[in-house]
Amino acid sequence: MLQKLLDRIVKPDGAAGLQAQWALDQLTKPPGSLGRLEELARRLSEMSGQFPPQARRCVIFTLAADHGVVAEGVSAYPQVVTAQMVENFLKGGAAVNVLARHVGAPVVVADLGVAASLPVHPGLVSRKIGPGTRNMAQGPAMTREEALAAIEAGIGLVYTERRNGLDVIGTGDMGIGNTTAASAVVAALTGAPAELVTGTGTGVDDEGRRRKVAVIRRALSVNAPDPSDAIDVLAKVGGFEIAGLCGVILAGAAWRIPVVLDGFIASAAAMAAVSLKPDARHYLIASHRSTEPGHSYVLNALELKPFLELDMRLGEGTGSALCIGLAKAATKILAEMATFKSAGVTDRSP
Amino acid sequence: MLQKLLDRIVKPDGAAGLQAQWALDQLTKPPGSLGRLEELARRLSEMSGQFPPQARRCVIFTLAADHGVVAEGVSAYPQVVTAQMVENFLKGGAAVNVLARHVGAPVVVADLGVAASLPVHPGLVSRKIGPGTRNMAQGPAMTREEALAAIEAGIGLVYTERRNGLDVIGTGDMGIGNTTAASAVVAALTGAPAELVTGTGTGVDDEGRRRKVAVIRRALSVNAPDPSDAIDVLAKVGGFEIAGLCGVILAGAAWRIPVVLDGFIASAAAMAAVSLKPDARHYLIASHRSTEPGHSYVLNALELKPFLELDMRLGEGTGSALCIGLAKAATKILAEMATFKSAGVTDRSP
Repeated sequence: MLQKLLDRIVKPDGAAGLQAQWALDQLTKPPGSLGRLEELARRLSEMSGQFPPQARRCVIFTLAADHGVVAEGVSAYPQVVTAQMVENFLKGGAAVNVLARHVGAPVVVADLGVAASLPVHPGLVSRKIGPGTRNMAQGPAMTREEALAAIEAGIGLVYTERRNGLDVIGTGDMGIGNTTAASAVVAALTGAPAELVTGTGTGVDDEGRRRKVAVIRRALSVNAPDPSDAIDVLAKVGGFEIAGLCGVILAGAAWRIPVVLDGFIASAAAMAAVSLKPDARHYLIASHRSTEPGHSYVLNALELKPFLELDMRLGEGTGSALCIGLAKAATKILAEMATFKSAGVTDRSP
Repeated sequence: MLQKLLDRIVKPDGAAGLQAQWALDQLTKPPGSLGRLEELARRLSEMSGQFPPQARRCVIFTLAADHGVVAEGVSAYPQVVTAQMVENFLKGGAAVNVLARHVGAPVVVADLGVAASLPVHPGLVSRKIGPGTRNMAQGPAMTREEALAAIEAGIGLVYTERRNGLDVIGTGDMGIGNTTAASAVVAALTGAPAELVTGTGTGVDDEGRRRKVAVIRRALSVNAPDPSDAIDVLAKVGGFEIAGLCGVILAGAAWRIPVVLDGFIASAAAMAAVSLKPDARHYLIASHRSTEPGHSYVLNALELKPFLELDMRLGEGTGSALCIGLAKAATKILAEMATFKSAGVTDRSP
């Protein structure tokens, strides 16, 4: 299943993007004067192969899972918060719910491996691979089979939503300890020193950050993940939600649905996706730049420039939500603005 | 009237801002993790003196006028475009209409001095001071009385809208040639060299830009505006819409309504407003950073950090609209998010 999906991912031909740029230049404004909003409109066309580009149904996929590595004291919050926050998502009281409602995007909440049994709820998609990963500082976080199952679960989430129409995918995550896993994944895939790609996460202090770096180094040394094999990396030092997001991203790329990356966690998943299939990067939109140092590192590596710089560092899909608001605005520019011709406005002299 | 308004403008006491910050810290997210969105929520509270802050009715004031200085060949577009774009605004086909609808903000279109007789239209507020300014390269753009009338017209626009409830003011402009006037205003008020605060506007080439700089230098030399007298500066080298926006901004500050600055033109107006009453700066929100070099100069001078960096340079209120979207999101965070207590989520260990 995965290989078939990877085979579908190809670089977009660019024709729809050129058409979008031509159309943007007919609108009643100096050429290029809407800056990156025009870039966004053009890229949405290019990725989807559609003109005009659409951003009517944008869905945020917020994947949750727990991490055995929290036993090493890498987070400012206890593990129980993952499950509590999933319940908060289901009640609509978390930041991602508020921002997603603000931009009119539904949130798909999926349990990829929370270490608690969550209540059955119509808003919760259960794709539990296991009760949290194992502690990667002592051995692999999961088996290769589990990593593949998590990726395929992510693909399945997109498959299901695609049947209702899906113009733009937003990524999101919840998992106490997952910045540690994301840093380990990025370090393993890119060879970057753990020190460089590790931040304070939800808010550990300097000592906590040093502990995170040491734990990541230990995990990399104990597991020796193969940098050329992203599945191996995800299995040994990743997380169920990170692998799941890798699947979501690959599915978007395969079906030509633009994928909005949230923050550091989603970008680490994108790094793995691009490692599996380099052409997947053509379908990625960086929503914002988080304050996590590893995030900037990944954005550089993926050659992505974020649309927002708001010093956010929450995850959940909050950055995706705000960027989906911009994507909707960008498509409306093309759909609703008058042209020089239609409005009878004099264009610049040749 | 103006002096009475200026006397009302005082630094906010900060109590509501502190209350907002306290409330933000109770919400189910690590403290500060929504970054500048939290800053925006806090500042909206501080400015308005209200907790929770509101951004229900946000109105964009797009003021249009013509500039005699276009006779010097400073714009890529002919003067007739100002009137044509006003008609485009009234039909809803301009970028500001699309983005304002996107964020649910009405646009007040006001003619402060377009050099054409515009049709009577229920959506157009006529406050014409004159048929465009005179050519500032040869003498004062307007009389002191005209500058005051334009400022008071701006105040009047806010007064009228305020009766329907007005939570946030967005600024916007239309006027072929107005980046030349804005650059001259900023140079006159701050002493910055014209070279430093003059850009390509709607898209003149290098030679056009050199011509703009020369024209601004000539205007400053011919008129010798008094840098300590912002009314004198607005009269001699400003524009009717720039003076009008100065009035809009002062009215916002006086009535404690947060004012979102659009791009370079609105920021030049803000520079004049702050020169008239330094405490007005506490009520300013910088929406975005335009590619006009003078805009960054003014943002630095006003110590404002924009919320968006999207390389836009269109004006009209397009930056204001996108920032109003963020302001609405920021207020919803406070209004709709669960607290650790209400959601039963474990807060970090002390």
